[in-house]
Amino acid sequence: MNDTINLLMNHRSIRKYKNEPVTDEQLNTIIAAAQMASSSSNVQAYSVIAVTDSGLKNELASLAGNQAYIQECPVFLVWCADLYRLREAAVSEAAGEETYEDTTENYTVATIDVALAAQNAAIAAESLGLGIVYIGGIRNQIAEVAELLGLPELVYPVFGMCLGVPDQEPLLRPRLPLPAVLHKNGYDREETRVQVKEYDKTLSSYMQERSSGKQTATWSEMMAKRLTQPARLQLKAFLESKGFMKR
Amino acid sequence: MNDTINLLMNHRSIRKYKNEPVTDEQLNTIIAAAQMASSSSNVQAYSVIAVTDSGLKNELASLAGNQAYIQECPVFLVWCADLYRLREAAVSEAAGEETYEDTTENYTVATIDVALAAQNAAIAAESLGLGIVYIGGIRNQIAEVAELLGLPELVYPVFGMCLGVPDQEPLLRPRLPLPAVLHKNGYDREETRVQVKEYDKTLSSYMQERSSGKQTATWSEMMAKRLTQPARLQLKAFLESKGFMKR
Repeated sequence: MNDTINLLMNHRSIRKYKNEPVTDEQLNTIIAAAQMASSSSNVQAYSVIAVTDSGLKNELASLAGNQAYIQECPVFLVWCADLYRLREAAVSEAAGEETYEDTTENYTVATIDVALAAQNAAIAAESLGLGIVYIGGIRNQIAEVAELLGLPELVYPVFGMCLGVPDQEPLLRPRLPLPAVLHKNGYDREETRVQVKEYDKTLSSYMQERSSGKQTATWSEMMAKRLTQPARLQLKAFLESKGFMKR
Repeated sequence: MNDTINLLMNHRSIRKYKNEPVTDEQLNTIIAAAQMASSSSNVQAYSVIAVTDSGLKNELASLAGNQAYIQECPVFLVWCADLYRLREAAVSEAAGEETYEDTTENYTVATIDVALAAQNAAIAAESLGLGIVYIGGIRNQIAEVAELLGLPELVYPVFGMCLGVPDQEPLLRPRLPLPAVLHKNGYDREETRVQVKEYDKTLSSYMQERSSGKQTATWSEMMAKRLTQPARLQLKAFLESKGFMKR
């Protein structure tokens, strides 16, 4: 175990921040580290909007489901998949030729690129003593978020990330047992089933501890609740309207 | 600058490995670190197949475009988005209710989840002195890869990752200037355009240095070449056939 692995193993999402700033130097260091993540053929198909304007943060918090920590964190990052910059660069050199920015492949590439960069940013931030939480809620009203931030076509907000000095130390959340996610030379359905049953007990104990006995849900129960909710069904139409995934 | 940020800033993709093993202990440490990455509502919608069987590695190398380092690395990881495990867990608790695993939202969530976990794995591996390279080529013949690894429906191979002891030290590849990817309180198209022009010069110099003067392409030229190629157009149909993104 080295310091970096120790840092990775101690990740917690932070939802309460001290009233202290994130400096420009810290932000630039974090984003520079993000940029060094791998990128498919060096396309670097992402952009990040640093939101520090408090009015704008309030509007985004409201669009993302009124999560107070979006207003309270000093910097709110909106991580965007960005094929606009790529297409602009490409068409300046490929006038008249057909381009393929609108494929499911390139949607997938851009979504992967932004996630790899954001995870580097998360780790860099935590190594500086800052805390983060990913905010999927910015996809709740994605068209409004895109308009508010002036996103061009071929850019979509993938997730937000609050950034600030932690003012809480939550419990570590136990993950699935290693053999539930790590398969050897082929996918093992039976092992997965057995390990999920084991994890159901682990997570139910964790929920009881965290809620002082009020919650006892297993992972399977929580996943059933989540998967039976019709969440963000408008995403497909929004993405197509922005030029993504037409084929 | 701390050790972790120093590690992130020195990432290079490694495509040549020493004939030395990756131990089970190293692999377990790397995947455990991967599991601590954030996951949307704790869905943990990914699996990873560790391929060490040399016959299987050869077949995957062949399917991914005959990249020798896939055969030569001691462990080849295939990172998969996995909504199968989630649905199996959920339907055991939600018999009869409609479930929404087939949405574009859940495709996106699973693709993000696997990328966040994989990037943690990459960093953990590098902190242990190992090298990695992401392999998008496993999407070239994705149906064959899925069959070879026995992937159930609702599981797709997102990318591969070679893992091994580095036997090369490539140049650091310069990234886009920071202001090309970092926007303040809104997307800035004009700044992006200016910064890409600047990067074109930087990357052309880097290509010349790396190729001893034989290559001089700018980033815009490389992106034009990439974006005019009809890459992996079968992905959409494959994903739909596996139960993804039906709505």
